[in-house]
Amino acid sequence: MSTWFTEKQTDNFGITAKVNRSLHKEKTDFQELEMLETEEWGNMLVLDDMVMTTEKDEFVYHEMLSHVPLFTHPSPKKVLVVGGGDGGVIREVLKHESVEKAVLVEIDGKVIEYSKQYLPSIAGTLDDPRVDVQVDDGFMHIAKSEREYDVIMVDSTEPVGPAVNLFTKGFYEGISKALKEDGIFVAQTDNPWFKADLIRQVCADVKETFPITKVYTANIPTYPSGLWTFTMGSKIYDPQQIPAERFTDINTKYYTNELHGASFVLPKFVKELTE
Amino acid sequence: MSTWFTEKQTDNFGITAKVNRSLHKEKTDFQELEMLETEEWGNMLVLDDMVMTTEKDEFVYHEMLSHVPLFTHPSPKKVLVVGGGDGGVIREVLKHESVEKAVLVEIDGKVIEYSKQYLPSIAGTLDDPRVDVQVDDGFMHIAKSEREYDVIMVDSTEPVGPAVNLFTKGFYEGISKALKEDGIFVAQTDNPWFKADLIRQVCADVKETFPITKVYTANIPTYPSGLWTFTMGSKIYDPQQIPAERFTDINTKYYTNELHGASFVLPKFVKELTE
Repeated sequence: MSTWFTEKQTDNFGITAKVNRSLHKEKTDFQELEMLETEEWGNMLVLDDMVMTTEKDEFVYHEMLSHVPLFTHPSPKKVLVVGGGDGGVIREVLKHESVEKAVLVEIDGKVIEYSKQYLPSIAGTLDDPRVDVQVDDGFMHIAKSEREYDVIMVDSTEPVGPAVNLFTKGFYEGISKALKEDGIFVAQTDNPWFKADLIRQVCADVKETFPITKVYTANIPTYPSGLWTFTMGSKIYDPQQIPAERFTDINTKYYTNELHGASFVLPKFVKELTE
Repeated sequence: MSTWFTEKQTDNFGITAKVNRSLHKEKTDFQELEMLETEEWGNMLVLDDMVMTTEKDEFVYHEMLSHVPLFTHPSPKKVLVVGGGDGGVIREVLKHESVEKAVLVEIDGKVIEYSKQYLPSIAGTLDDPRVDVQVDDGFMHIAKSEREYDVIMVDSTEPVGPAVNLFTKGFYEGISKALKEDGIFVAQTDNPWFKADLIRQVCADVKETFPITKVYTANIPTYPSGLWTFTMGSKIYDPQQIPAERFTDINTKYYTNELHGASFVLPKFVKELTE
């Protein structure tokens, strides 16, 4: 008899995946962490019963959270990843040669530890010399940073549990202060099918802090509804007005230069949430 | 205790939805038909245990299967829908004023009957005077049609059961013959996460018959992986080269003129299937 892991993505809908075995399970200081070996998606990191990443589809989220802002900035040198303890965003960040220093501030050291152990294809570059891993509160790190970063990427869980502060207007103001005068930030902002109000609120809040606010999407099969949004706040650079020569050739499976532009063209009901 | 409907989208992965009650269930001459009242998605049509359409997310599929080819053609007058007994594509087709006659050829009359009863917001325009509903084999209808249609839309189930003939090279050749000399056809062609080989094969087959072959995508939360592909074969008109004045203002929830273009920009791993 096989075991199935079911994530209730809403009270009335969810996904279910066949599990070969549980590789690790513990209650950390911040959340329930479980690493599952699934048949369809490879190893899967689950936090508080929500799928965070899987070996098979992780590339979509990690490429889209990182390359869109990093190619929007003409020369990102110092970047910050808030959350992202699985290391996937860092792996993509390091593909940009301009990056000299990538700081990762993850609140839960256990996520880093078990990602290194069970998700090596994702976490494998966390020991790169350009990476500075800090087990710390991202909100506090932002609060004490000033004019420091070119790009800040918020790779958080949902706005419950440890990430609840990362979806507030005060946080976006802190990010603006932590960014240089031409800085860019992007955050994962959930899905428009079940979390329309959240997207509407984040968008309105970011707009009050950043001159340029734009939402883009990507398809992530193991995330609720499969349609994921990312919200970008930018001080100067418009992600939809990028000189062709800014794009360099990097190895990806989802992101392309052409898709960069197309990902900002939203389905009508999503566009309406951002207006 | 509540009941949940689970669709195994692959052997090892699926979706699960809370069901308030089963409205109707029968084995028709062609397939298992069930109409469920779900909490998250409203009424849901299930054929052979696969979700066909739901009241909440149906607009994506129906808008994208119809408006992309219909706006690519400068003046579609006579159109054919193969399958599509729920009536959703017909509802969208009728939004185009140029259309004089819309023929629906659905093999299973029971799909039409129970869609009219339980999905009135989808099937409600099947009695429109511009619509000719035929309960018949779409493959045979195509075989005996010649230079008749401006646009043909294939709204089929998966390539198992009654739809198996609709994913063959002979069918695409028949479609080409049934289309006028500037005709366009489009078919739903499943998802790139679990059915990569199918997309590769359909694309290669359509390319052998049509001078212009292009794939576009849409997000459909209740379909496997959430990322759906549509494959278009066109004799003359390029769906990515449309004069702005061709777009007229129609009422939609997903499709926009801008999204029309963006939907052809594929994620890298999907693009590679089409090359």
